[in-house]
Amino acid sequence: MPRLDARVVQAQIAQVFTALGVPAEDAELVAGELIRAELMGIQSHGLVRVTQYATDLRSGLAKPGAPADVVGGHGSLTVVDCGWNLGIVAAHRALDIAIDRCRDAGTAVVVTRNCNHVGRLGSYAERAARSGFVCIATAAIPTIGHFVVPWGGAEGRLGTNPFAYGFPTVSEPIVADFATSVIPEGKIRTARMRNDTLPPDAVLDVHGRVTTDPECFYGPPRGTLLPFGGPVGYKGYALALLAELLGGVLAGTEVDEEGRPVNGLFLFLLDPARLLPAGTAEQLAAKVVDYMHSARSAPGGRPVLVPGELELGELARRSSGDCLIDVDDGVWNSLSETARSAGVELQALGEGSAA
Amino acid sequence: MPRLDARVVQAQIAQVFTALGVPAEDAELVAGELIRAELMGIQSHGLVRVTQYATDLRSGLAKPGAPADVVGGHGSLTVVDCGWNLGIVAAHRALDIAIDRCRDAGTAVVVTRNCNHVGRLGSYAERAARSGFVCIATAAIPTIGHFVVPWGGAEGRLGTNPFAYGFPTVSEPIVADFATSVIPEGKIRTARMRNDTLPPDAVLDVHGRVTTDPECFYGPPRGTLLPFGGPVGYKGYALALLAELLGGVLAGTEVDEEGRPVNGLFLFLLDPARLLPAGTAEQLAAKVVDYMHSARSAPGGRPVLVPGELELGELARRSSGDCLIDVDDGVWNSLSETARSAGVELQALGEGSAA
Repeated sequence: MPRLDARVVQAQIAQVFTALGVPAEDAELVAGELIRAELMGIQSHGLVRVTQYATDLRSGLAKPGAPADVVGGHGSLTVVDCGWNLGIVAAHRALDIAIDRCRDAGTAVVVTRNCNHVGRLGSYAERAARSGFVCIATAAIPTIGHFVVPWGGAEGRLGTNPFAYGFPTVSEPIVADFATSVIPEGKIRTARMRNDTLPPDAVLDVHGRVTTDPECFYGPPRGTLLPFGGPVGYKGYALALLAELLGGVLAGTEVDEEGRPVNGLFLFLLDPARLLPAGTAEQLAAKVVDYMHSARSAPGGRPVLVPGELELGELARRSSGDCLIDVDDGVWNSLSETARSAGVELQALGEGSAA
Repeated sequence: MPRLDARVVQAQIAQVFTALGVPAEDAELVAGELIRAELMGIQSHGLVRVTQYATDLRSGLAKPGAPADVVGGHGSLTVVDCGWNLGIVAAHRALDIAIDRCRDAGTAVVVTRNCNHVGRLGSYAERAARSGFVCIATAAIPTIGHFVVPWGGAEGRLGTNPFAYGFPTVSEPIVADFATSVIPEGKIRTARMRNDTLPPDAVLDVHGRVTTDPECFYGPPRGTLLPFGGPVGYKGYALALLAELLGGVLAGTEVDEEGRPVNGLFLFLLDPARLLPAGTAEQLAAKVVDYMHSARSAPGGRPVLVPGELELGELARRSSGDCLIDVDDGVWNSLSETARSAGVELQALGEGSAA
């Protein structure tokens, strides 16, 4: 498994994007987000995305440098047209607008049109929280990604629609970010590559029967994913549907229209200082964190954490340490190839010296 | 199992509340909500609550006629002091305020202080949606109800904190409303009375081990409830925690303070007509409903529904039919006794004629 120096590879990934026409500042933003996800242990939103975004740039699906235009809304509610820029760049612009409006009005709602893949949704919830705001974020996904069944169904009608929130405290923010399916499609891909079975009660075959065989998902005919919740999966279904309603419907998108944007982002921000004296919510939230930590662990379990704590802790530990990233061979091969074709030669640690 | 005429018993329940000092209009509101929950098939928030509310009124915990006062907030964000009125009355007042603000500003946030049990949370989401607004609602619960473990924990730190939303369509609104634990405490009580076992993976004993024995929950020592999500129960935990942050922290409540209100209600309203031409969101949402309905059912399953459809369908069917309610013997006995002590004599159908 190749090992990389995160700082070196981050600069090189930025070079790859600039070579593909992305303005330097935006390229650095995207590379930074992907490396940050790797250092948090969230590989699904890390380096594996470089090839995807490069492909989008080459095919013209992603339009580097496109502005994020306000095209609708009134007051603190805004519709942002992302102009098919890279989703991470556009979503940060959308969040900039939301933060501005929230400073003025105490709340802000932003929905997007023509938005590519926004990457890790929790990133926006986290940034909003670090700016002092409570944030709820969801993302809707177009028909091509409708792998998730409505509760009781045997055909996909929803994406793995993530739900995220951020809440500021006196120290690190609380940051939740999860798919509303039991598992994301990426986990099935990995299991298939490794000849593993799937966890039970996560995936259905084409007939709507539970399966642990990755091939039964890919078919053809294709299987589906269950919303999370197990025997009460109608709860996960309700949340997945909420993401479609907030990020799809409120942006004026038809649920089954062709050529839908990759993500329909919904952002809600709230300034707690409009409800309580400044700093109070952050202090009370820190007490909530302490109260959660004070719970005894289940047998054999690790200490109780709050959402985001594991990932932010991992990030802090690795950033202040050797800042190394291990990547799967498959990801490494595709990443190196993508970089090479953009004129950037990546090197895993030890590779040069071993030669 | 006694059978009641819903219209007759609704008027009688209202009489019970007026006899206990509740203004006539408020008594009718509360009685109407409880009967409506029964007709929707949600017995947990129906007639079983009459004795609870009557007890609160007699003990002075509930203060009938108390106004809902705006005591904080700026712009479209409002802190409402419910003055310990009956929670259903106070929550409707809080929603009145939210609807007013949302008409003005396009969004509204309301949090509550000194709020008693608000009953069925979905009721507020539904009413907001029927008023044309998108609504997200959560409720926090005080330490005495902290039965739910944080993920990986063996001690309760959260309530069964419900999460609800309403979204308007061209016909019936979409209304989701669910506890963030696998099962509510009421289900354990019922299982214990009936000598049933519990569903698996819902309840832990005092040591943090999964149990299906209701006695292991009640102890002493007392067990706990798992957040919903099964193997990904950290997602249900994140939602339960969100309800505490929104309804507890934002209202200025300490997570473990003594004498906390029974419910910390959080309401977020959004006017879709500030983002899209009037009526568009409702039409697009109706298409989402049709698209969900179009999914083939899982083997042996019933047709796919959207959240709230089952309950609203049941309500419509029974309201336009004989409008009858069947109540458990236990509920009936306590209800009759509560009514009698307020000078109201209830009668089950056939009781008089059988005598």
